[in-house]
Amino acid sequence: MIKVGLLGAGRIGKVHARSIAADRRSQLVAVSDIDAQAARELASTHGARPLSSQEIMADPGIDAVLIATSTDTHAALIEAAVRAGKAVLCEKPVDLNLERALACQAVVAKVGRPVMIGFNRRFDPNFAALKRAFDAGEIGKGELLSITSFDPAPPPVGYVKLSGGLFRDMAIHDFDMACWIFGAAPASVTAIGSSIVDPAIGAAGDLDTAVITLHFADGRMAVVKNSRRAVYGYDQRIELLGSDGLLSAGNVLEHTVTRITTAGAQAAKPEYFFLERYMKAYAAEWSAFVDAVQSGSDYPVTLQDGVHALAVADAATLSWQEGRTVKLIGGRPA
Amino acid sequence: MIKVGLLGAGRIGKVHARSIAADRRSQLVAVSDIDAQAARELASTHGARPLSSQEIMADPGIDAVLIATSTDTHAALIEAAVRAGKAVLCEKPVDLNLERALACQAVVAKVGRPVMIGFNRRFDPNFAALKRAFDAGEIGKGELLSITSFDPAPPPVGYVKLSGGLFRDMAIHDFDMACWIFGAAPASVTAIGSSIVDPAIGAAGDLDTAVITLHFADGRMAVVKNSRRAVYGYDQRIELLGSDGLLSAGNVLEHTVTRITTAGAQAAKPEYFFLERYMKAYAAEWSAFVDAVQSGSDYPVTLQDGVHALAVADAATLSWQEGRTVKLIGGRPA
Amino acid sequence: MIKVGLLGAGRIGKVHARSIAADRRSQLVAVSDIDAQAARELASTHGARPLSSQEIMADPGIDAVLIATSTDTHAALIEAAVRAGKAVLCEKPVDLNLERALACQAVVAKVGRPVMIGFNRRFDPNFAALKRAFDAGEIGKGELLSITSFDPAPPPVGYVKLSGGLFRDMAIHDFDMACWIFGAAPASVTAIGSSIVDPAIGAAGDLDTAVITLHFADGRMAVVKNSRRAVYGYDQRIELLGSDGLLSAGNVLEHTVTRITTAGAQAAKPEYFFLERYMKAYAAEWSAFVDAVQSGSDYPVTLQDGVHALAVADAATLSWQEGRTVKLIGGRPA
Amino acid sequence: MIKVGLLGAGRIGKVHARSIAADRRSQLVAVSDIDAQAARELASTHGARPLSSQEIMADPGIDAVLIATSTDTHAALIEAAVRAGKAVLCEKPVDLNLERALACQAVVAKVGRPVMIGFNRRFDPNFAALKRAFDAGEIGKGELLSITSFDPAPPPVGYVKLSGGLFRDMAIHDFDMACWIFGAAPASVTAIGSSIVDPAIGAAGDLDTAVITLHFADGRMAVVKNSRRAVYGYDQRIELLGSDGLLSAGNVLEHTVTRITTAGAQAAKPEYFFLERYMKAYAAEWSAFVDAVQSGSDYPVTLQDGVHALAVADAATLSWQEGRTVKLIGGRPA
Repeated sequence: MIKVGLLGAGRIGKVHARSIAADRRSQLVAVSDIDAQAARELASTHGARPLSSQEIMADPGIDAVLIATSTDTHAALIEAAVRAGKAVLCEKPVDLNLERALACQAVVAKVGRPVMIGFNRRFDPNFAALKRAFDAGEIGKGELLSITSFDPAPPPVGYVKLSGGLFRDMAIHDFDMACWIFGAAPASVTAIGSSIVDPAIGAAGDLDTAVITLHFADGRMAVVKNSRRAVYGYDQRIELLGSDGLLSAGNVLEHTVTRITTAGAQAAKPEYFFLERYMKAYAAEWSAFVDAVQSGSDYPVTLQDGVHALAVADAATLSWQEGRTVKLIGGRPA
Repeated sequence: MIKVGLLGAGRIGKVHARSIAADRRSQLVAVSDIDAQAARELASTHGARPLSSQEIMADPGIDAVLIATSTDTHAALIEAAVRAGKAVLCEKPVDLNLERALACQAVVAKVGRPVMIGFNRRFDPNFAALKRAFDAGEIGKGELLSITSFDPAPPPVGYVKLSGGLFRDMAIHDFDMACWIFGAAPASVTAIGSSIVDPAIGAAGDLDTAVITLHFADGRMAVVKNSRRAVYGYDQRIELLGSDGLLSAGNVLEHTVTRITTAGAQAAKPEYFFLERYMKAYAAEWSAFVDAVQSGSDYPVTLQDGVHALAVADAATLSWQEGRTVKLIGGRPA
Repeated sequence: MIKVGLLGAGRIGKVHARSIAADRRSQLVAVSDIDAQAARELASTHGARPLSSQEIMADPGIDAVLIATSTDTHAALIEAAVRAGKAVLCEKPVDLNLERALACQAVVAKVGRPVMIGFNRRFDPNFAALKRAFDAGEIGKGELLSITSFDPAPPPVGYVKLSGGLFRDMAIHDFDMACWIFGAAPASVTAIGSSIVDPAIGAAGDLDTAVITLHFADGRMAVVKNSRRAVYGYDQRIELLGSDGLLSAGNVLEHTVTRITTAGAQAAKPEYFFLERYMKAYAAEWSAFVDAVQSGSDYPVTLQDGVHALAVADAATLSWQEGRTVKLIGGRPA
Repeated sequence: MIKVGLLGAGRIGKVHARSIAADRRSQLVAVSDIDAQAARELASTHGARPLSSQEIMADPGIDAVLIATSTDTHAALIEAAVRAGKAVLCEKPVDLNLERALACQAVVAKVGRPVMIGFNRRFDPNFAALKRAFDAGEIGKGELLSITSFDPAPPPVGYVKLSGGLFRDMAIHDFDMACWIFGAAPASVTAIGSSIVDPAIGAAGDLDTAVITLHFADGRMAVVKNSRRAVYGYDQRIELLGSDGLLSAGNVLEHTVTRITTAGAQAAKPEYFFLERYMKAYAAEWSAFVDAVQSGSDYPVTLQDGVHALAVADAATLSWQEGRTVKLIGGRPA
């Protein structure tokens, strides 16, 4: 039984708490949050103790920590946790600043303990099925990957200002998917974008609609389409053209009912947002973490993966700002 | 070049005239109709002569006749045409009366010339693809066939009264499809039905909604669902469960555009009615007739097929009226 | 908190145990089974006590019982439970014998406590969405209902012999769906069927493939298609033609990935069997039971519903055996 | 009756000849080709005369010309035809050289006769339905357009060398679609691409796989994905995200049959290539041309549209070569 301390009792912390509780191999024993009341409530729900993060790190009875705090604390908590000998699963991103993330990676490397980053989409059953089919050679060599990733509604501008921008906050998931599917980091990144959904997002220096292309060293390409608003729900699809065919992973719909009338055929919308669409993915992510902790095998998503995705996000930001293709050299935008 | 006389210049006659004209191997040379004006107009459009049906039969320059007149004239025209040595394609049904159809069959057998019956749906590219896949063994042994066949709107009661009833007028197509797909005539027929679309149809002694099951001697079954009204268009689908899987042939939609909004995903309706849905089927039917005439090979749909389908329709009518399963013995309801 | 005693620790008992445990408003406190070891193990997994069914009935601390024992014990356990003042959820069917089920219904009526029958499919999110749409008038008046219900593989003949036959064991679910959707019991039933999947099933006096039509007093009709074998998985679909359109509820697929190659487009199969397809339905069923117990409102599925479905199954059996339409008069086949 | 001279008797010339013959309002009266034998044969098939292009231009009995010759002759033939007072429909592109196309446009403007360019895809019933829905405001304001345009197999390298490159030869269709749908020309163009399908294409200085993004002045964006090889057929899809929803136009499949087995569900491929997919589009294109000629209304595709698309292709080429976003200023890449 893996005893787990959860850092962060917010929305995503609650999702993880349920996954930890539902897996028979893990037990939630402690919860921390800067909001002590939130920590107490979530701890109480699961029969865990409210502790500070320092107490969690110091408790030798806690085997693993799940970091679901605000982004600016991730790197320091990762470092503290590996030094404390914990198994670590940290929500994405490692940090909004690439240099800080690289420093964290150096600390972790020195300690010599692995860290898993929570790119939950890799664990979506549909995307995982696409990846398995591709790895099994079902469409031959991969050539052109397309990722559609639209949120149902834009976040408040207050959120946008702290988010690191669309590329580091939203597209980073898609960059990780591209790197994961192709098993490589891109050689160059080209981005265009607009603020056409909400002018306030543009006024805050960010964009809400973007197209980013990734070029890999061997000629393969990926294109990521992002929008902060698809009124019909969370649009999360992947298409991969290969030398022998095309793989596509579609949306998960709310139900399978279709109605045909004089107005045409009406089917259901996609699941509304990530808590609906990726509910199974969060559970599978936690299960994969526990598998690796128990077996001692490599984590399926590494800290390096988190750093790669952030570097791509930095390159996309630079490309958008300067109207040019940005190369990635030695893992940094050039 | 096959020189063709067309008997009947109504709606379906015009469809056939276009198919004859579009096939480079055939030429429409004469058109007859009880409405002389209609015959003149259709003949003029295609550079043909308006003639009487007797003149067409007597003209040694005419190789083939296509019978698209009213149902009550089919049997006599078939008999006249084979006696005149013509190749014959006759619209379904052979007759509304089974005994008359059997008598016609006897005449034709005596003359020794084949006749093709126009069960156009066999030539629909989708149904033909299903049949090919089934015959190729793609789902193993056939077990349970389902045919959905809904018209967009009920016909006028005046039409209903002359139609021979839903089973002989509408379901007869589906009975032929079932016999064709399974390569056999059923051993027994069971039908239930209602008049719930238009009470006037019920008042006229007919029904507008029905479910007919066919049981074949070796245990295979088919179920035909009929309605005179599907407001969204012509619903024409087939499903076949076999020992190794399921084949299904769906509707042909008006276009491939889908719209997703907060109200859900909206796709196109099926093609509206038989002139839209089966346009390609009519052309392919004519082409198959010409193929057979030129090559001397067997017709793909025979007079026997037309008689079988009529016998099933008679059995369905009897089953509906008497609330019992009706056997087919020696090709007649028992 | 509703304290629950579970009667029956077999496959379906385990499914229910999980639902009881997952609902925060209910607690599994006791488990009985004729196999004492099975009861102990399942009880242990959920922190409950292994008891006899008599002990469960006698324990005033137990509020509700879930009956998931073998069919021949259902009626007696229902009677014992209502007499003991428990809230009752019983797996379908009430009994294989209609007279016994009617007797049980009489006992329950005398005691004056309601009983819920576990027709789980009503709680499938897709079928529930279809029912909601229909009740909301989205396709007008219902006319023709089609239920496709195929199992992935036939059961062992030993099971078949005790099952009461395909109509009482398998089709009974579909009969309940038809009655539920139309809000009425049929006036007559007509069935045909074959043993073409496994001859041993036929040798045991049962059938493995069937088509049953239900005729309702106002002319509406339903057709149920059953097969014990669809090699591609559990095929569970509903279509409902109405005066203003068509509603259909499709299968739930294993994932959303499609692969297009020179061989065509390949998509996923349906979920394999009821434990996969109806996992959400079982949880929703339990939740609905708890809702009703807590609020005192009517159960969404009643003992009467269970008796109706059994009467339809009896009528279908008779129809199949005698080759005639069987009327239902006063709730009994005539 | 519009009397038509067809210039070019190659593959696409034959397609147009059939459209001209099938439209009752037009008659093919003359055919020219540098291969006199080809001109004679095609003319003979349609009862037309084989003439030289000069003879066609000079013949006052010819009302309209359809230019389907090799690309390098388009501009000069357009100029000759407008000077001769003909109605003109010319295959795309106007020329491979933007300056030559602009010069042609100047000549045409001076003569004051309109010219229609054959961007056939605008007339595809599916894309036309998408455009109509968008123009009707069904998804609000357009934001992000995605065009997938894959050929089934790469052309021979000999063709590639004369083609003007992928952007001018293949993507130009998609550029026109983007401009048409958005009703505007883009402000800037960014392209990346690879030669990963056939190294010989790369050796010839061209690319076979590309992603091009178009940025419009008001922030809207379009992304075009091109590949010279999708082994499963001609992949021609459009998706448009708007403020109120998403429109998508899918491929046209070979048939509607699906087969479900233990291996999953298998559906048909897209129509193989443009002659299959766009057969209806070519007929509709011709019909639209005749409509405009007869009514005197504006052509639905203008010479200006042809020049715009070519300018975008030039900008894409430059962007790809220089790794930067290329602006379009005054209709020219900057």
